[in-house]
Amino acid sequence: MALTICFAAGDDNWADYRVPLARALADAGIAAHLSDRAPDPAAVDYIVYAPASPLRDFTPFVNARAVLSLWAGVEKIVGNRTLTQPLVRMVNDELTEGMAEYVVGHVLRHHLGMDAHIHGQDGVWRNTILPPLARERPVTVLGLGALGSEAAKALAALNFPVTGWSRTQKEVPGVRCLSGPAGLEEALRGAAILVLLLPATADTDGLLNAERLALLPKGAVIINPGRGWLIDDEALLAALDGGRVGHATLDVFRVEPLPPDHPYWAHPRVTVTPHIAADTRIGSAAAKLVATIRKIEAGEQVPELVDRTRGY
Amino acid sequence: MALTICFAAGDDNWADYRVPLARALADAGIAAHLSDRAPDPAAVDYIVYAPASPLRDFTPFVNARAVLSLWAGVEKIVGNRTLTQPLVRMVNDELTEGMAEYVVGHVLRHHLGMDAHIHGQDGVWRNTILPPLARERPVTVLGLGALGSEAAKALAALNFPVTGWSRTQKEVPGVRCLSGPAGLEEALRGAAILVLLLPATADTDGLLNAERLALLPKGAVIINPGRGWLIDDEALLAALDGGRVGHATLDVFRVEPLPPDHPYWAHPRVTVTPHIAADTRIGSAAAKLVATIRKIEAGEQVPELVDRTRGY
Repeated sequence: MALTICFAAGDDNWADYRVPLARALADAGIAAHLSDRAPDPAAVDYIVYAPASPLRDFTPFVNARAVLSLWAGVEKIVGNRTLTQPLVRMVNDELTEGMAEYVVGHVLRHHLGMDAHIHGQDGVWRNTILPPLARERPVTVLGLGALGSEAAKALAALNFPVTGWSRTQKEVPGVRCLSGPAGLEEALRGAAILVLLLPATADTDGLLNAERLALLPKGAVIINPGRGWLIDDEALLAALDGGRVGHATLDVFRVEPLPPDHPYWAHPRVTVTPHIAADTRIGSAAAKLVATIRKIEAGEQVPELVDRTRGY
Repeated sequence: MALTICFAAGDDNWADYRVPLARALADAGIAAHLSDRAPDPAAVDYIVYAPASPLRDFTPFVNARAVLSLWAGVEKIVGNRTLTQPLVRMVNDELTEGMAEYVVGHVLRHHLGMDAHIHGQDGVWRNTILPPLARERPVTVLGLGALGSEAAKALAALNFPVTGWSRTQKEVPGVRCLSGPAGLEEALRGAAILVLLLPATADTDGLLNAERLALLPKGAVIINPGRGWLIDDEALLAALDGGRVGHATLDVFRVEPLPPDHPYWAHPRVTVTPHIAADTRIGSAAAKLVATIRKIEAGEQVPELVDRTRGY
């Protein structure tokens, strides 16, 4: 029997996903009615969701087997009390690859001191400052999910001594893995470059506050391609002005687009990038959605299933 | 019997190397007279050399077993007709590591379009341009010696499709290796990003001329941390102005320091870095010199021995 899939992820996404998703379903041999309307919510088997969706009340979808998020971060939906169906996050290889490239690229940018050259094309030959080697520059990655662990491994492959921290203990090859509150303190104390890839949960709101920023080595660099709310913005600006933080490259913000008058834009030691670190590639995301549907239909485990108590 | 080692690599280098080199010899248990003078050239067993040296005539050193270059590039000495002793290039792990970091960092900088963000902190949220993934961005590395092959491997590990080219056929894991004139043409045609790590020889002088630049895909990026004379500078400037080359990041030049009025400094799509891609770290270079001496004394092969007919 054909599945009924309701695409409730906003009109822009529908325009992008309609054809690739239909094709991915056909390629997988899954018969489905795919629509952005749900005339009979009780007939819907799967809901595809993104924060742009107008859908707020999941109650009528009494037979839905899962809500499939187009985003890796589910903080905008996980607290919805009408959502009692299983919630599945988007994790796909291309998203992970793009994130690792952003992280490694910006870590190397700061490691090599590139900005001085990019800005300093003034005819003066300044060859006296030799950067340390990667193996002498400790990097800490907070968050060891799919994105964080892949980024950590890529950095370790370039000889950076990498410390990873996660709420619960993880094992990542070539990475010193810490966990818990004491581990977080140790991870921050050793971070010449700090990469934030934690999920947004109640526990991580403002995680990087004044107290924790003060643990960083003087002049530490912060790279945040994770979530805007991991950072206490006032505290970070103070730490930048006080010299504790040498530079911050920020891709995500509490309000996006970042307002034009936000002090981050004008700060000489902040680089704003416009939430580009890891964008979802439609073709592979569609394939991933279909793979998840196939697994649920077959009764298989879905590793991206959100744990509602921890929030990701 | 103690060896006599003449350090003829310039006063600045002598100041830097005197203590580390003596220590490295002692650590290796090699008894040696180390001096920057040679009262009796016939008594000298080894000569340490760099282009800063005033030494031009190697004829009197009739018993020297090798001339040990502090530099990886030996183009400033290899043509010296008085030099009949074996010539050994400096190849060391830290030099190779530093080079790989520079290459990967600048490839990712261009791949991710970082400069637009570094320069464009103007409050405008431009999130519409999604870069391709590394696996969709072909990179070509010309030169597969110690530096080139390590850089190529590091790029391949980040999923870039890497083509390597060398004069004679090489094998590098994960890298498509080409050689010869037809291979060079193919390597250039496929290079969205082109990295130059060839040695400076008679054959490579002006290798990247107008004809070869015209083979590159439109908008290709050139990164040259190898040798300045690999590039025909007039041709590169014309290719930049014509749009064939999108950007050039250059670390080495025919004249260094690059004169302040050189057009490279002022060109909006050229980044000059001041010969910093791979600087020699003194501690590891001293250890490498001593390891080479030990090998020669033991009658072992020295892979860094320069082939005088090919020039490196």
